[in-house]
Amino acid sequence: MPQLRKDPILGRWVIISTERGRRPSDFAAVREERKGGFCPFCPGNEDKTPPEILIVGREGGEPNSPGWTLRVIPNKFPALQVEGDLERRGVGMFDMMNGIGAHEVIVETPSHEQSLSDLTPEEVRDVLRAYVARITDLKRDIRFRYILIFKNHGVAAGASLEHTHSQLIATPIVPKRVMEEMAGAKKYYEYKERCVFCDMIRQELENGERIVLENEAFVALEPFAPRFPFETWILPKAHQSHFEHCTEEELTGFAEILKETLQRINQALMFPPYNYIIHTTPVYVVESQAYHWHLELMPKLTKVAGFEWGSGFYINPTAPEDAAAYLRELRLEQ
Amino acid sequence: MPQLRKDPILGRWVIISTERGRRPSDFAAVREERKGGFCPFCPGNEDKTPPEILIVGREGGEPNSPGWTLRVIPNKFPALQVEGDLERRGVGMFDMMNGIGAHEVIVETPSHEQSLSDLTPEEVRDVLRAYVARITDLKRDIRFRYILIFKNHGVAAGASLEHTHSQLIATPIVPKRVMEEMAGAKKYYEYKERCVFCDMIRQELENGERIVLENEAFVALEPFAPRFPFETWILPKAHQSHFEHCTEEELTGFAEILKETLQRINQALMFPPYNYIIHTTPVYVVESQAYHWHLELMPKLTKVAGFEWGSGFYINPTAPEDAAAYLRELRLEQ
Repeated sequence: MPQLRKDPILGRWVIISTERGRRPSDFAAVREERKGGFCPFCPGNEDKTPPEILIVGREGGEPNSPGWTLRVIPNKFPALQVEGDLERRGVGMFDMMNGIGAHEVIVETPSHEQSLSDLTPEEVRDVLRAYVARITDLKRDIRFRYILIFKNHGVAAGASLEHTHSQLIATPIVPKRVMEEMAGAKKYYEYKERCVFCDMIRQELENGERIVLENEAFVALEPFAPRFPFETWILPKAHQSHFEHCTEEELTGFAEILKETLQRINQALMFPPYNYIIHTTPVYVVESQAYHWHLELMPKLTKVAGFEWGSGFYINPTAPEDAAAYLRELRLEQ
Repeated sequence: MPQLRKDPILGRWVIISTERGRRPSDFAAVREERKGGFCPFCPGNEDKTPPEILIVGREGGEPNSPGWTLRVIPNKFPALQVEGDLERRGVGMFDMMNGIGAHEVIVETPSHEQSLSDLTPEEVRDVLRAYVARITDLKRDIRFRYILIFKNHGVAAGASLEHTHSQLIATPIVPKRVMEEMAGAKKYYEYKERCVFCDMIRQELENGERIVLENEAFVALEPFAPRFPFETWILPKAHQSHFEHCTEEELTGFAEILKETLQRINQALMFPPYNYIIHTTPVYVVESQAYHWHLELMPKLTKVAGFEWGSGFYINPTAPEDAAAYLRELRLEQ
């Protein structure tokens, strides 16, 4: 059973998941690049994964057989476990609970060769729809406080399989970064009675120099104080606290801007490894006037990881104005 | 002039240092491994660095000539600049100031081949003494609120030069992680009237299962809720808020335990890249009953960077009890 443990100084929860455990000697292998070979996400290998939770595409036919265009499955090596109770408890001065949660994989396409930005806008929308469907289903489980959607693309960004996919982790605690964002947004709201993200979007659209791309309902921009070169946020222009409240029309607009942002990042930076994370309001909150959901995209270009992890102090060699101009002015190939 | 910019949601300051700037095409090179070649830190190349600030070893002779056993120099590509005023100002809703600060490099040995753990305990103590001397000097400049000492070892941990060295950055703001630690420690102190680190050390020494190593004045342990496999903290057993208040005797004990901890990490994990950071009380605080300085060492073994960066949520596949037992029971070679 994985454990959730709390750091007594910072109050940050960490998952200790030794079922995925490693001996010291196993870590050397991590430093080598991954080689090709068998892929459990390719059609025909459905029996090599846990049974599917959701699919798009296959009409009739056997479950867990080919014919799908998108497939959601439980992670075969989950960081958290669905069955059981939390059993919050103390160990002397320390606090812990059982590692209860859900860990799912969204296989975005049957094609092993395509990446997310190669998919059609409709296929990208199917991916976003799958995110919404899984959040909507999982939020009925009252043990879960937060549902985190993220994507690791490329070995250097932590992807352990090449076949394009996203992940979902439902947790009994709210991740530290989300709590901090909620607290910061609340502070601003208390002072201004306005959403800090709405104010930011308004100012950025007026000013224009950090805007990458926009459509009717969404804007992609470089934030004023980015941690990383080409860090890009995609936000709905109108206030909306929960990603899963998106309408069909909004998902269409989000799919379009996400695809084009990824295309521009890929062309500008020669297909970098990247991570994206959807930041949204915790599921137990019905509605928030202060917090505004968005996606944060971080190309992995620099290697100064540990220092930044340890200090919370970031040195960014690229001004967001320069990155935005570059991405905006790029003539998209294809 | 570099800029310090504040994220309006999280309140986190970021350095935008475009003097070190890069075009998008430059980032591709970062992904290749560094090759050997000219080393500005080797003896004989003293004129290829800015003039030295502090040396150990050379008796008489010309400044910036060989003969030193340790050398402190300004960083040739500083993230922050020493000259100027902060000029705090707003840009619409955003906040920024000039990137004022100091950025120095501690070249730990003239030998290009040795790493920090290869040095004698006396040589390691010289490195720690140099840290103390530089902090003591820089804290007289009232523009600086914090002085951060850290080491990136290996390309994957962000080291841009192979020759073993540490870095110092003096900043006009306190890094976010330090502020959070101070706040967490203060909360605990207000409730218990005891230092949370002192309580932790007491419990860990009694329990023993997460202890790696100890000597008279210091303990090396795996924390209860570590973010990373083999994350190791070294703490003075007696309460001490500021690293730079260490006595000569304490520095000797710290050097011994730091060297042996690195040796054990190196042998267990086959010389991994790593980062360490000294966490200490901000320089403007005279003394703190709540905060306890320490060193945090993070071997870079896993690649799940961006997701963790973005969410503050860590999945650790190695229990700290297992890592501690492994490091503790290892028979040190040599």
